Amino acid sequence: MIDDVLHFPEFARGTVWLVGAGPGDPGLLTLYALDALKQADVVVYDALVGDPVLALAGADAVLEFAGKRGGKPSPKQPDISARLVALAREGKRVLRLKGGDPYVFGRGGEEALALVAAGIPFRVVPGISAGIGGLASAGIPLTHRNVNHAVTFVTGHSAAGDVPDSVDWEALAKGSPVLVIFMVLTHLAEISARLIAAGRPADEPVAIVARATLPDEAVLETTLADAAAAARTADLKPPAMVVVGEVVRLRQGLDWRGALA
Amino acid sequence: MIDDVLHFPEFARGTVWLVGAGPGDPGLLTLYALDALKQADVVVYDALVGDPVLALAGADAVLEFAGKRGGKPSPKQPDISARLVALAREGKRVLRLKGGDPYVFGRGGEEALALVAAGIPFRVVPGISAGIGGLASAGIPLTHRNVNHAVTFVTGHSAAGDVPDSVDWEALAKGSPVLVIFMVLTHLAEISARLIAAGRPADEPVAIVARATLPDEAVLETTLADAAAAARTADLKPPAMVVVGEVVRLRQGLDWRGALA
Repeated sequence: MIDDVLHFPEFARGTVWLVGAGPGDPGLLTLYALDALKQADVVVYDALVGDPVLALAGADAVLEFAGKRGGKPSPKQPDISARLVALAREGKRVLRLKGGDPYVFGRGGEEALALVAAGIPFRVVPGISAGIGGLASAGIPLTHRNVNHAVTFVTGHSAAGDVPDSVDWEALAKGSPVLVIFMVLTHLAEISARLIAAGRPADEPVAIVARATLPDEAVLETTLADAAAAARTADLKPPAMVVVGEVVRLRQGLDWRGALA
Repeated sequence: MIDDVLHFPEFARGTVWLVGAGPGDPGLLTLYALDALKQADVVVYDALVGDPVLALAGADAVLEFAGKRGGKPSPKQPDISARLVALAREGKRVLRLKGGDPYVFGRGGEEALALVAAGIPFRVVPGISAGIGGLASAGIPLTHRNVNHAVTFVTGHSAAGDVPDSVDWEALAKGSPVLVIFMVLTHLAEISARLIAAGRPADEPVAIVARATLPDEAVLETTLADAAAAARTADLKPPAMVVVGEVVRLRQGLDWRGALA
């Protein structure tokens, strides 16, 4: 039955697949992602991809780390792209595995453009974004009838490490009833202050979700005014994301992980 | 190896799992979703879930349609929630299967609240949202360095069928460099006009992605001013979504499906 319906593409030698690994729980891999792990010769993975996911790679696959690691300088993006090209030119089946989805603040577009420029065929396999699946795990619906018809994903961290200048926080504060902020812990105090200055209530509910979908997932419910201090006190482990908006209140009823535990 | 890492939860009798089926291609189901399909006694599915996904249900599973079908009145949301509760009270393993992700404009939160009110244990399994995975399939990254640090998902259709009044289109036009608009075809002319009135360029690139990830996927590249007329002329089949923003231009290089075809 499965074989009638599912057609797994052949992972051709000399090609690169950009694959999302989802938020962490290996059960949230897609069927395509699992198949890619089994077929790949080399898995080039970033820091958000955990051991349980990597354990699903084929026994002969080479696992190559390409992320940031405490204290050491991280590989530059052009170096990673060049490495993908070089591996493909060696005739390898190259799986570029990224946490979440490769095209949601994952710099997958830059890598894909580098592959195109080098004439390397590629494929994209989307993954569950932590901004969606991680919140569901925490008991928070991204949208809810009569609460919000829009939700914005925004990064709290530019490539240079600052709060992104190009983000119009005032307009977002006005237009987006729910904000999901990625890579935010460093600049949470500044971002919260900007949102409050733009008119968001200081007591607006906020959830900070750390290590979403993993066994040590932690969820902190707080307010916009208190969020940065609460995150510091709780000493949350990365990765973490922040949700701002009334949907956070629904967690009181919808914390299914808490209810099943 | 797989069994060491993957722990599939037991689908207990009398419980409901809210599961996302992804954008359409069954290879984009999560491992949990496939396992849920195999364990379920009843699969209550909506109109966005296609036959290839349903074919993966266990041989003894009852498939129950709960969506809109041309010409006939669609079941009301409270009726669907009541049906989930009734099936669970019969002791069934009830899989509520929704296109995309249950918490992204999927009304999953309402169903979950009904289950909580009735004392029915539930679990949420996120799915690949068409707003992410569908665009990746179409060759459009949702975010791209130096193009956008924010992206907004918005629905073009309120529960009453109108353009949602609660959406501040002017603020979104200002704050969100990339807009992904769900359920938009009916009101595309009005929404485009509002975005242009709020300052978005009439020639801003727009992609309309219909039947994303399915064999008959169709992608139309147009502009904000021309989008509604172009969609009418092309007679696109639903479901469709619209992407507004400079990331659409990247499709020239990143249309991997076109390149592999």
